[in-house]
Amino acid sequence: MSPAAVYVHYRTKEELLFELSLRGHRAAQDVVEEAAAAAASPESQLRRIARDYTAWHARYNTLARVVQYEMGALTPEHAERIAGIRRAIEARVRAVISAGAGAGMFHVPNPEVAALALLSLGIDVARWYREGRGWSADDIADQYAELALRLVGYRS
Amino acid sequence: MSPAAVYVHYRTKEELLFELSLRGHRAAQDVVEEAAAAAASPESQLRRIARDYTAWHARYNTLARVVQYEMGALTPEHAERIAGIRRAIEARVRAVISAGAGAGMFHVPNPEVAALALLSLGIDVARWYREGRGWSADDIADQYAELALRLVGYRS
Repeated sequence: MSPAAVYVHYRTKEELLFELSLRGHRAAQDVVEEAAAAAASPESQLRRIARDYTAWHARYNTLARVVQYEMGALTPEHAERIAGIRRAIEARVRAVISAGAGAGMFHVPNPEVAALALLSLGIDVARWYREGRGWSADDIADQYAELALRLVGYRS
Repeated sequence: MSPAAVYVHYRTKEELLFELSLRGHRAAQDVVEEAAAAAASPESQLRRIARDYTAWHARYNTLARVVQYEMGALTPEHAERIAGIRRAIEARVRAVISAGAGAGMFHVPNPEVAALALLSLGIDVARWYREGRGWSADDIADQYAELALRLVGYRS
């Protein structure tokens, strides 16, 4: 599509940004929810969330950078809708961490900070990752999944 | 200074960006070098590097976002000078991790990934941290220093 054709669908640049941001955040949320649903134990859930969330940010790094770094350009109403999705993602990760801590598997002084750091690691991959330079998206995702278990003080 | 006054000093926007990027990267490098020099054991060095690097990205989050997210707008020559500083920072962190692993204090499958993740955690703080909302820069820096030791599998 030409730039003009894109503008037929969106009245303003901000609307286009919001649409991209909404789709990107929903996709990232789906990744986290599916990963949590696909595994039974908090350890498997956390490993899978970290792996898939990291792989998503590597694979779709261009979209992810727009999604993650341009939120300041949204209207307050749109920013609030996106913030709601972000809070839901964080809450899901915190719940998995708390479940693991409750089961004596994870050892975290602060589940909120651990959840934030875990998501932060995945998000920052979009900043530096480019396909075809060194690691594949799956390589980095597998290694970050192990780091995520370290962050939550996992002991089997 | 007015925007016009800024342009008196820089011929182009790219030159201004490069100057900011250079100062920001040198400041971040100083933080890492001073932290490494101020402590004797790899454990203390790593804790201090993670703490001070994180605090810097929280405290100077506006500059840090320019420094970290606008590198794509630099000329190839300027990007290469900045990349050199980044490689030096990464090499310093890897050296501390390798020293700790050699001393049997740290347990890392891949020092390169561990160094990358540790710096990544600090950098991403600039994306979400804003003063006056919840944690102070020192709070988050202290908590991230503990997470950094977890990332490298520290056992005392």
